[in-house]
Order: sequence, then C-alpha cells, then structure tokens
Amino acid sequence: MSTVTALPEQIVAAIRAVVGPEPVALHEPSFTGNEWLYLKECLDSTFVSSVGKFVDRFETDLAAFTGARHVVAVVNGTAALHIALKLAGVKTDDEVLIPALTFVATANAVTYCGATPHFVDSSMPTMGMDAEKLRAYLTGHTEQRAGQCINRVTGRVIRAMVPMHTFGHPVDLDRLLAVARDFNLVLVEDAAESLGSYYGGQHTGTFGQMGTLSFNGNKTITTGGGGAILTNDAELARHAKHLTTTAKLPHAWEYRHDEIGYNYRLPNLNAALGCAQLEQLPAMLASKRRLFQHYQAAFASVAGVKLVPEPERCQSNYWLQTLLLDATVSSQRDAILRASNEAGCMTRPAWILMHQLMPFKDCPHMDLTNAESLSQCLINIPSSAGLAS
Amino acid sequence: MSTVTALPEQIVAAIRAVVGPEPVALHEPSFTGNEWLYLKECLDSTFVSSVGKFVDRFETDLAAFTGARHVVAVVNGTAALHIALKLAGVKTDDEVLIPALTFVATANAVTYCGATPHFVDSSMPTMGMDAEKLRAYLTGHTEQRAGQCINRVTGRVIRAMVPMHTFGHPVDLDRLLAVARDFNLVLVEDAAESLGSYYGGQHTGTFGQMGTLSFNGNKTITTGGGGAILTNDAELARHAKHLTTTAKLPHAWEYRHDEIGYNYRLPNLNAALGCAQLEQLPAMLASKRRLFQHYQAAFASVAGVKLVPEPERCQSNYWLQTLLLDATVSSQRDAILRASNEAGCMTRPAWILMHQLMPFKDCPHMDLTNAESLSQCLINIPSSAGLAS
Repeated sequence: MSTVTALPEQIVAAIRAVVGPEPVALHEPSFTGNEWLYLKECLDSTFVSSVGKFVDRFETDLAAFTGARHVVAVVNGTAALHIALKLAGVKTDDEVLIPALTFVATANAVTYCGATPHFVDSSMPTMGMDAEKLRAYLTGHTEQRAGQCINRVTGRVIRAMVPMHTFGHPVDLDRLLAVARDFNLVLVEDAAESLGSYYGGQHTGTFGQMGTLSFNGNKTITTGGGGAILTNDAELARHAKHLTTTAKLPHAWEYRHDEIGYNYRLPNLNAALGCAQLEQLPAMLASKRRLFQHYQAAFASVAGVKLVPEPERCQSNYWLQTLLLDATVSSQRDAILRASNEAGCMTRPAWILMHQLMPFKDCPHMDLTNAESLSQCLINIPSSAGLAS
Repeated sequence: MSTVTALPEQIVAAIRAVVGPEPVALHEPSFTGNEWLYLKECLDSTFVSSVGKFVDRFETDLAAFTGARHVVAVVNGTAALHIALKLAGVKTDDEVLIPALTFVATANAVTYCGATPHFVDSSMPTMGMDAEKLRAYLTGHTEQRAGQCINRVTGRVIRAMVPMHTFGHPVDLDRLLAVARDFNLVLVEDAAESLGSYYGGQHTGTFGQMGTLSFNGNKTITTGGGGAILTNDAELARHAKHLTTTAKLPHAWEYRHDEIGYNYRLPNLNAALGCAQLEQLPAMLASKRRLFQHYQAAFASVAGVKLVPEPERCQSNYWLQTLLLDATVSSQRDAILRASNEAGCMTRPAWILMHQLMPFKDCPHMDLTNAESLSQCLINIPSSAGLAS
C-alpha cells in the first residue's frame, strides 16, 4: 500500500492519537464553571428577557476582555454584522467588500442592507482578505469621486470592507486598514470566529470602526445564540444599542420609536450563560493552543499535510484547527472527509465559496485563485477545548 | 372633592383591591413548573444552540396546543412576522395593511421586506382591524388588476393584510378573511399577544396563511426571547424552517445555501424554558381570566371606566387587562398613568399610533378615528397570571 492511498487512514490515526478513541464532534461547548449557577440566578430573578443584570454584565465583561470601549450584546453574529454595516452607512445599491472564503452570514448581512457583496481573495498564510492583492485590484477597478470609492464596472459606491478572521487566525490588519484609508472604505471586522485572538497584542474586532462577535453553539464560548458589537466610538455604541432595542425612546410609559429598529437584544437568560462562559475563556484558549501543539506533533510524520499555524505577530484562539493538503494530495480531500466522518471523527471542508452559491453567483468579484485553492485543500478537524484539557 | 377629580385615586384603589399593597409590574413571568429541570437538562446535554430536543419538542407542543399543523420556532415575534411576510410574497414597493394600533414590530417587519405599511382603523369592541370599515375603504381606493389589489392613489400593489389580536382579544376573523378573499390579499395573523386566545373555538394564528407568536419576557409565556410561525401548509412550513436556518441544504459536511437566509432559529436553551412554560399555560390562562373577573368586580363602582371584555364568540387569553375611559374622563388619562405608576402599580397607555411615529409618518392610512379614540382612552393595568393565583 503506497503512502498516497493510505493518507485518509493516516489522518484519522493522527487525529485519534490526539483525541482518543471515542466519537468526537468538530466543536462542542463545555460548561464546567458557573453556568448553572448563573442560569438559576437569572430564572429566580424572573428577568430572563431583554433587560437584566447579566446582559449588562456580559457587555462590561466583554469590554474588559477585548479592550473595546463599548460593547452591545445582540441575538447573534449575523444581527451584529447587520447593525454594524447599517452604522457604517451601507445603503441600497452600495457594494461591500467581503472575503469569498467565509460563512454565509457575512454575505447575507450585506444584502439585509440592500447592498451587494463584492468578493475578495484570501492570503494564503492568514486565509483572510489579501491586502496587497485587494489594493492592486481597487487601483485598477475603482476611482474616487467626491470622497467615495466608485466601482468603475458597476458604477456603484463601494462603501465598506469586512475582513473576517478565518477560524480564529487574524487577518493582516495593518495593511487592510491602510487599504481602507487609501480608498475611503469603512472597515468593519467580522470577528465572529476570533474571540481571544490578537493582532500585535490588540484584540481582534477593535481595529475597525466596529467589530462583531458570535456566541453560537459551535464557537469558542457560547450563549446558545448570541453576538456582540464592539466599538471605541461612544456615539456609534449608543446608536447600535438604540437600533437593536426597537429604537424606542426612554419614557416611563410612552412607546415612541424614532427610527426603524430591530428586535436584536440578547436575552438576559442567554447572557447569564455568556457571563459564566467568559470566566472560562482564558483556560479554554490555553487548551485550544495545547490542542494545536498536540496535533502538530501527531501530524509531523504525515507527508502531504500540515496544520495552519497562527500568522506572524498574531495570537490565534485556534477556534477551528485547520489541515492544509499539499496540491499533490488535495484530490483526496473528499476521501479524507468520508474516512474521518465514518470513523466518528467529525471533519469538514471550507465553506463553499460565496461566489459559487446560487444567491451570490452574479455578484462582482476579483480573481479568487487563493480562495479557490484553500477551498480545495483545507480540512477542519476536531477542535473543542475539552480535547486537550 | 368631586368624583371627577378623585378618579386617579379611585383607579389606584380598585387595582390595589385586586393585587394587594406591594409594587406590581405590568406583566411578569412566573416559573413555577419544570423550568429549572429543563434548563439544567439542556445545559447537561451541551445542546444549547440551534439544534436539540427541546426546540423540536417546543414546536410539537405548540402545534398540539394551537392545533396548527406546523410550527417553526424562531428567535422572536418580529423575526416570525418578517419570514411570514416574505413567504406571503411581500416584496420591495408593495404595501401591507396593518393596524395603526399595534406594537412597532408589525410595521418594522413590513419594512424589512422593502414594503410600506398602510394603516387600518380599529373596531371598538375588538380594538383590532375594523373589517367593514376596511372593506369600504378598499372598495373606494383600490382596483383589481391581473388578480392584484392596486392602491389607486400610490399605484402600488397591496399584497397582504396583518390583523393583530390586541392584548389577546381576537379580531373579527370571519369578516377579515372575507375582505382578504374579496380583495386578493394574503392574510397573516400577528398573534404575538394571543397565545391561548380562540375565535369560535379555533386558536388564533391558525386562520390566516400563516400566524406568528411571541414569547418575549412580557408575554403570557416566555422563552427569554422567542417566537414561532404557525401554518397548516406543509410547503410553507418547510420553506419557513429553511429560511430561518440560513437556507442551508442538508449535507454531512458541505455548506451550500440556495437562497438568502436568516439566522432566526430559536436556541435550544430558550426552547427548554418554553417547554416548561407551555406546560403551565392552561393554569396561567385560568388565572388571567380570574384576574379579569376580580378587576371587573373592583371597577364596578368606579364611574367613567370599564374593562374591555373578550369579544363575542371569542375566548381571550386576557394578556393585558385593559381599562377604557369614557370620553368625559379621558382627559385624565395622563393623571391616572402618573398616579398609578407613582403608587407602584405599573400601568401604560396604548402604543403611540403607527402613523404618528417619525419613521412611518408618510405611510398611507385610512381614516383612523377609532384607533385615535382608543389611543386616548385606553390604559393597561397589572396583568400577570400570578396576581390571581
């Protein structure tokens, strides 16, 4: 049996060497702290809904952890992106630059504003937006008119760019911020996957005008469903809170709403879970880093695959551990996915690229060679913090 | 001291006679059943997010309770309305008939589809849409073209109508369904306030093409935040579930989405609370009915005010108990609101009518005499089920 034909089995064996013989999920939460205590306290208070001490505390605790000056807790990461884009000024018929390699929520949130996503290629080491390739593309395809970046092909305003920190690995923020500045684009960070990830020592999601987090059940910490908006701008934070709470003006009994708002507030019940999870986050991050090291050791002897390490000058939360297949073996991707999933080791490929999805097939995009290559070569393997504790 | 000047104090005394001397909220939940047990079970399962047994069970239990063939659980009532309107075919530049007297979510959901709300007057006994007044208005202001109802003034298609069961009192469904049929309008019921309310023995929310529920913290039962879509149409239910779960096609590992979807699934954690609450609902409904009777007795001797009883042939859940002030004393409404709230008895007036809110001031509307009268004369008083247990 050649090495090539045995690759799927070698990969399953390397994963098993790290995670043991039991069936293992791609990512599952662990509730080993005050989760039950806080849920019970929340229930006993009867404040389970849109107001309560846990939702306020969760915002304060997230601000302390991330260093963001202001945090607004919302029902999920998609809602956070929707509001951040609205506050970035994204309007009907605008375009917004987002990675082709991302979860569909990034693209959906753009459409909720009536705008069109415009897909950007990835850099290989970060898997996120490629700053220099984007700069060259914008130089060739856009012009500045009255301080706005105009797509010369479509004639539409490109209003904003939304880099996403893929699987927890930070994008090249310095270069992307320079592109945003030079082309008059608002930069919103989709940090759904990167709670606990740092670029040059500063937490992701705090570099752009706003950043967004997700606490879905598959994320590093979970609130069941939940998300948050981060910003250092007090007025944007006030407006985000207002829009996410039906835009109701404060009054003892009057229901007056001064703009079209949303029912996006994170319930206090979900925030209670979040407060307990956040207490566990430093330990989880340490576990996830150890898991990466264990995998690196286990895969050292497997030819043709390597783990994607955190980019230089960055600290990743290692949300999802990522294998990259060499071009010589990437044709075996589906065989590896089948073998591992059949063996009870849950693995998955990259998301189908955004421009290949039916609802976005007519959206503009640049050359996507790197994203296409990553989408063929990339496999996420079991990543729960509990696997290395 | 004349009777008229003493009215605020008389009203506070009548409320106090029923609810006792302690501070009392307008509506607060009670968790006296399996709430702890199910939340703990949910946490221990680690399935707290978009999949799990409680969210499936909550849908089944709601179907059994309401008699709807299909139920889709979502993050809140606003999301339920948004999806129901999308599935009703509401598109950019359409108009949708909604009551002027409603919570702002009804109007907001219309705008999320790119459509314009068009405001309808109330009938006095139901406080909801006045069917005969609406029929006369549509006869005078619309015409049918190719099976569509066209607003002759704006030239836009009126696609749907969304009666709302105000404070739990059912609208006149027979007559409104006839209007919908005669003018080619899809009828979607906003049953956010009427879980446990019946029209002619059938549960509200099951008459229209779709109906929507809310389980916000102030509702009869709560999931923290939550809502549901009811329908008897299997294909609409399938599509609603698909749209509310990011429109992802089923596959072991592939992330393919075939239309623009939403992150609207109710988390399993919130559904766990809902399952326990739903078990308590029959007892809560009995308590709320007793509370109405207690208030009726207490207010029998207060001249100039009366409680709004359930409409004929209907059973109301009496979500919010409602006082109606005679025209002769309605100028005292704000004095009554002040006196009661200062005395620790939370009360509130009707919502500000939709056409009087800044974001909707330019939307079309019919004569709104009844809604305007109700909005001046109506006061909701403390209504929690626990007040009459």
